[in-house]
Amino acid sequence: MTGLYAGVDLGGTTIKVAIAAADGDILAQDQVSTSSHLGPSAVLNSMGDVIGRLKSQIAATSPLIGVGIGVPGLVDIETGTTKFLPNLPTQWRNIPVGAILQQRLGCPVRLLNDVRAATLGELRFGHGKREPQLTMAFFSIGTGVGGGVALKGDLWLGPLGAAGELGHQTIVPDGPRCGCGNRGCLEALASGTAIAAQGVRLMRSGLAPALHALVDGNADRVTTREMTAVADQDPLVHEALVDAAIAIGIAAANVVTILHPDLIVLGGGVAEMGTLLTDTVQDVITCRVGMFPTDQVRVERSLLGEQAGLCGAVALAMKAAHT
Amino acid sequence: MTGLYAGVDLGGTTIKVAIAAADGDILAQDQVSTSSHLGPSAVLNSMGDVIGRLKSQIAATSPLIGVGIGVPGLVDIETGTTKFLPNLPTQWRNIPVGAILQQRLGCPVRLLNDVRAATLGELRFGHGKREPQLTMAFFSIGTGVGGGVALKGDLWLGPLGAAGELGHQTIVPDGPRCGCGNRGCLEALASGTAIAAQGVRLMRSGLAPALHALVDGNADRVTTREMTAVADQDPLVHEALVDAAIAIGIAAANVVTILHPDLIVLGGGVAEMGTLLTDTVQDVITCRVGMFPTDQVRVERSLLGEQAGLCGAVALAMKAAHT
Repeated sequence: MTGLYAGVDLGGTTIKVAIAAADGDILAQDQVSTSSHLGPSAVLNSMGDVIGRLKSQIAATSPLIGVGIGVPGLVDIETGTTKFLPNLPTQWRNIPVGAILQQRLGCPVRLLNDVRAATLGELRFGHGKREPQLTMAFFSIGTGVGGGVALKGDLWLGPLGAAGELGHQTIVPDGPRCGCGNRGCLEALASGTAIAAQGVRLMRSGLAPALHALVDGNADRVTTREMTAVADQDPLVHEALVDAAIAIGIAAANVVTILHPDLIVLGGGVAEMGTLLTDTVQDVITCRVGMFPTDQVRVERSLLGEQAGLCGAVALAMKAAHT
Repeated sequence: MTGLYAGVDLGGTTIKVAIAAADGDILAQDQVSTSSHLGPSAVLNSMGDVIGRLKSQIAATSPLIGVGIGVPGLVDIETGTTKFLPNLPTQWRNIPVGAILQQRLGCPVRLLNDVRAATLGELRFGHGKREPQLTMAFFSIGTGVGGGVALKGDLWLGPLGAAGELGHQTIVPDGPRCGCGNRGCLEALASGTAIAAQGVRLMRSGLAPALHALVDGNADRVTTREMTAVADQDPLVHEALVDAAIAIGIAAANVVTILHPDLIVLGGGVAEMGTLLTDTVQDVITCRVGMFPTDQVRVERSLLGEQAGLCGAVALAMKAAHT
């Protein structure tokens, strides 16, 4: 059955929506502000409006046959109900988003953690496209650190869809406090937020003159991208980036001991660090689990880049329609 | 087809052999010294002899239809060839054990890492017996720390059978050196060897008087068992045991983030620490990954105890015969 799919990437600040054809080609896409303060009901209305508008925009006669929504947190994947969404107000807990939108849109709607959705996107449209039996761990390293695991081409979700939280491995047992309550999680050490905090500290301590010049001393402008741009000139900024990459490497090495995947995929804003990140992660894997034949474990950037979440939501919409 | 299975647990010092019926009941079992210095060929001969002797001892008319061998290290599971066996001389590398014994015994022979075999045993004869879809991580904590992972009732081996090395997760990035070359592996922090080393240190520093009295000051007699026996009297011995249990808990919590298993199984000599171990591991999981619904993740001791390896080898023999 031909038809159209809608993928939705629900973020704390932005909702991205795409309408895709049967081959996954995105025919139209748009984004609106989440405005989560208006409450779930208004936001879901607005989400439905954007889907309707985009669909009429492409003047398609084919019906919408599946909707996939990537959500920043934990959801009950069976019922399509939100559970724990750290970046949205608490009133977003236990909202039956799937049922509400299914009624409005008249087709199956499926919810999934946004990075698990991105992992699905990477399987279907990225690194997994030519390797249907790929075993892969996907690290999405941005404001937080999310993750997803695929085993022989299938997403591994665990009961409730909570498996794959690669950012909440403990890397340093007595390390800095994480948003999840634990200490020393990968997210507390190597998220974009954690990396920028180090950059700002160095800049304010007079230890990163090139960074200071680049951002005009404005802390709000410091991200992994700016730090990467000055890493050649500010050795301590370089060191801060390497420290974060090493933490990501340890998390990846731990996944290798447990699952021995074919591929570690790095996505999110921090992946803009480029080869400094991928090479360091590969080196850490070799150093720490060299007893394994680790040369078979590849480390690569996501092929979907910033579109990973949206492509994943489209892949999820296809699952919603066909399984 | 009815027939008999032989399970072999090849250890650095002892070879244990069992003959089992179709229902897994062990009909006869024995053990001999490995005498690995005599070389693989002599040892494999002796292994074949024990199997033959046990079989004639039970005067069975049924033929031997499958042999499973648990091996202390990495093997190529496709070819049944040894790869990296840290507790045996280097001449044990690249020995086609499967092919050699298959020729002598006239039935399929399969090799597997010993703890992955024990995981298979736990699936078939232990915790998995009544839960065919069990997702489980098995930590075998003895001289070293081995592991195995089962997903929905199936062993997850990864390419080459190297997945499931739970003892070589990095727990403390700059921690003590591990036998594998890495620093701060779980094995370096919480193996029986590591725990006993702490006990001996405390004893020799005059900080563990009850332990000293129990073992007569003899370092060679200090194991987790003796330390557990005096933990009520020597607070620092208690602390050393808790520290090890916390490290095991962190490793288990990391597995929970990645796979969200139903069950963490603790086996090997260190599991004799009892509830101090299982309760601590459960607490660490709750503390560190409490954002998950971790109350669904159970922590229990292996139901197979010291027989885990041998039961696993029998389960492997059944796989050899029937798949």
